[in-house]
Amino acid sequence: MTPKSPSESFTETVHVVLPNDANPLGFILGGTVMHLIDMAGAIAALRHARVPVVTAAVDDLQFLHPIKVGDLIILRARVNAAFTTSMEVEVEVFSEETLTGVRQMTSRAFLTFVTADQEGGHRAVPPLLLESDGERQRAEGARARRAERLRRRAGN
Amino acid sequence: MTPKSPSESFTETVHVVLPNDANPLGFILGGTVMHLIDMAGAIAALRHARVPVVTAAVDDLQFLHPIKVGDLIILRARVNAAFTTSMEVEVEVFSEETLTGVRQMTSRAFLTFVTADQEGGHRAVPPLLLESDGERQRAEGARARRAERLRRRAGN
Amino acid sequence: MTPKSPSESFTETVHVVLPNDANPLGFILGGTVMHLIDMAGAIAALRHARVPVVTAAVDDLQFLHPIKVGDLIILRARVNAAFTTSMEVEVEVFSEETLTGVRQMTSRAFLTFVTADQEGGHRAVPPLLLESDGERQRAEGARARRAERLRRRAGN
Amino acid sequence: MTPKSPSESFTETVHVVLPNDANPLGFILGGTVMHLIDMAGAIAALRHARVPVVTAAVDDLQFLHPIKVGDLIILRARVNAAFTTSMEVEVEVFSEETLTGVRQMTSRAFLTFVTADQEGGHRAVPPLLLESDGERQRAEGARARRAERLRRRAGN
Amino acid sequence: MTPKSPSESFTETVHVVLPNDANPLGFILGGTVMHLIDMAGAIAALRHARVPVVTAAVDDLQFLHPIKVGDLIILRARVNAAFTTSMEVEVEVFSEETLTGVRQMTSRAFLTFVTADQEGGHRAVPPLLLESDGERQRAEGARARRAERLRRRAGN
Amino acid sequence: MTPKSPSESFTETVHVVLPNDANPLGFILGGTVMHLIDMAGAIAALRHARVPVVTAAVDDLQFLHPIKVGDLIILRARVNAAFTTSMEVEVEVFSEETLTGVRQMTSRAFLTFVTADQEGGHRAVPPLLLESDGERQRAEGARARRAERLRRRAGN
Repeated sequence: MTPKSPSESFTETVHVVLPNDANPLGFILGGTVMHLIDMAGAIAALRHARVPVVTAAVDDLQFLHPIKVGDLIILRARVNAAFTTSMEVEVEVFSEETLTGVRQMTSRAFLTFVTADQEGGHRAVPPLLLESDGERQRAEGARARRAERLRRRAGN
Repeated sequence: MTPKSPSESFTETVHVVLPNDANPLGFILGGTVMHLIDMAGAIAALRHARVPVVTAAVDDLQFLHPIKVGDLIILRARVNAAFTTSMEVEVEVFSEETLTGVRQMTSRAFLTFVTADQEGGHRAVPPLLLESDGERQRAEGARARRAERLRRRAGN
Repeated sequence: MTPKSPSESFTETVHVVLPNDANPLGFILGGTVMHLIDMAGAIAALRHARVPVVTAAVDDLQFLHPIKVGDLIILRARVNAAFTTSMEVEVEVFSEETLTGVRQMTSRAFLTFVTADQEGGHRAVPPLLLESDGERQRAEGARARRAERLRRRAGN
Repeated sequence: MTPKSPSESFTETVHVVLPNDANPLGFILGGTVMHLIDMAGAIAALRHARVPVVTAAVDDLQFLHPIKVGDLIILRARVNAAFTTSMEVEVEVFSEETLTGVRQMTSRAFLTFVTADQEGGHRAVPPLLLESDGERQRAEGARARRAERLRRRAGN
Repeated sequence: MTPKSPSESFTETVHVVLPNDANPLGFILGGTVMHLIDMAGAIAALRHARVPVVTAAVDDLQFLHPIKVGDLIILRARVNAAFTTSMEVEVEVFSEETLTGVRQMTSRAFLTFVTADQEGGHRAVPPLLLESDGERQRAEGARARRAERLRRRAGN
Repeated sequence: MTPKSPSESFTETVHVVLPNDANPLGFILGGTVMHLIDMAGAIAALRHARVPVVTAAVDDLQFLHPIKVGDLIILRARVNAAFTTSMEVEVEVFSEETLTGVRQMTSRAFLTFVTADQEGGHRAVPPLLLESDGERQRAEGARARRAERLRRRAGN
């Protein structure tokens, strides 16, 4: 399979926070952010693998600042590493205040997607082309998180 | 007010077409596309004006190709022209086949957004910096569509 | 095919504007109105053609007045003209203040629906019976808008 | 308060059944029909009383035939009787097969709405003008159902 | 078929009331409660019958107290009686004030679910094991409501 | 503040997987599961703290098995540890096959919720009463995860 660079699957999307996405204090629900993170991450994974994918794990998701109804939520997803039949995707979340344009990073998450077919099997994932130092470091981090996750699962 | 270039408010967003967005043939509903067009256009208008906006008109929206459940829908919104208290935003819509990456332009629409405040009044919009020939042509087109729309409304 | 009069497919529907349909100012989102316009128009087109239809174009949609959360939105859709495999449907939108009953026309749109089958082909549409002067004028207007739209598309 | 005839508040609405409204067999969920019945009934009650209303009871709701995804669901709501601070509204539900136009009555329900204000109190409801024999019979039935319901509640 | 006790299908679920579930006074919509009642009741019926079910009737649903946005809504569904191809399920609804924990019963409804297959036929339902006096009284009540419902339907 | 035992805030909820919750393969979206996990976890946190809460972090969420449209998803949330102004909640997710009753654990996640007030400050959380060895081990695990998370954040 032809290797692909991370920029070929990079995905950015933006939404307005609507009243139903929010709790009674007027801040976006954590679950809504998670849903958007999963969708953005899945699009990046689909664009890299070009086969159906399902979410396998989420590591280390933090919510640093609340986002208000009426403000924008921006999601950026990039593939950090491609394994045989799975990928790690990093999703960064930013708020953008509608009336000032002020942006803040509000979350970062690492998601693992595995390929899937109708029969419950897996499909191969193209290798990821690592060209810059930043890309190599991200892949390194992904491998460490994967090893840690497999270790924890084995220990359960 | 400081003029702003179209690139400062340019907005791109991407969604997976879900089963509930589709008709029984498995194609995205026109109304769902319109809803997404309006949201993407509103974000571009908000980013240019940084005051609340409401949709005032949609001109000449066409749907050239259907988009299937499971494929991606990409929307690109850019401010074509800024008037005293309103803006024309152009939204282009593309489909991206999930399993092949093939993209097709499926729609283009011109939306007019007006600024709004709680009392029903309007707020000023910053001028649009027109630097390239393409930007000047878009602004020209927007002015012609606006004149035509005002003419038609007067004639009603 | 037996011709049908516009009254056989005429469609009226009404909804309460809910909080999630609205922007932070408490007014219904333009995109929500567009979605409702498309659904009402599609029902009228389905009732005339009795085959699956998809939205092909929207011409000249204006939003004259905002509608508040808690008020009613009324949509009236009627087939203006039937072409070989497509139809023009006019949708008028009214607000009705819940506590006073005051009605205002807030939008009018002209939508073109084309028939569709699973294989991507088109199906024939029954002729439209034009009996009153009003019906003949509407059909005339639809033909003019269609000619203009085809002319613009050719010119692109 | 000026009495109002049932025709002043009569409400008809129509929806396309979408995939998310349906169970895995492809039939509309009972809960979705109930939701639509409540909305149609509430609109009729609001139009009669022109004050906020809340649902107080539903009597004798039956589902006679399933409705398929892609078909239409039509709801007709009429005020049967006005009491001091409440109303009985009858909602009839019909399916309309999209491709044939065949209609079937699928449900009928009797809903009681009470008026409400922010403080938890009630507001007066205008008398209902009963002019035809049919209207008088409906009001009779509503009074009987109300007596029966109050009797049951007292017996609890 | 092996009889099953009511406790094998007993279902409890809880939701936070979100802004879009509510009317402009901030109280949950009756139609939203009905939708939740139907879902909870359907789960209990599915757990007893383990075949697809559809809602056939709702008897005597009352709304005793409003529930506010931000509070919890708790639903408890239990099978009262099993007939040849249908079941009566009783659903009780409680509000729980988020900030105080105060609970109130707000609704009770009796739903009838019938089994269904793809061809429109019905499937057998396992008998219900009645062991306590309470269980026998519930089944008694269900049989009386069913007789009354069949009598009313015949009389229509 | 009076300490509370984990059983006072324990929360169980159950949902039917609907078509719109699923990807084109018919399996529930990871993002939908995350949303349900966040809601169940938030209810347990609210029940322990009885003040508004927001999601601060999600650790180590895994998806072990897919869940099909039409099957049930069961969520169980329990407070593992209470800190000064935050809590760790563990959410376990199970699928239940509608037609067989077969249950499988499909996910487990650890969520941190912090208390919040309108001014952006925090509110105190009651201590958690740890009575069994299992409860003490869970609290131990929560403290270790918290230390690890703070360490990682400091290292960023």
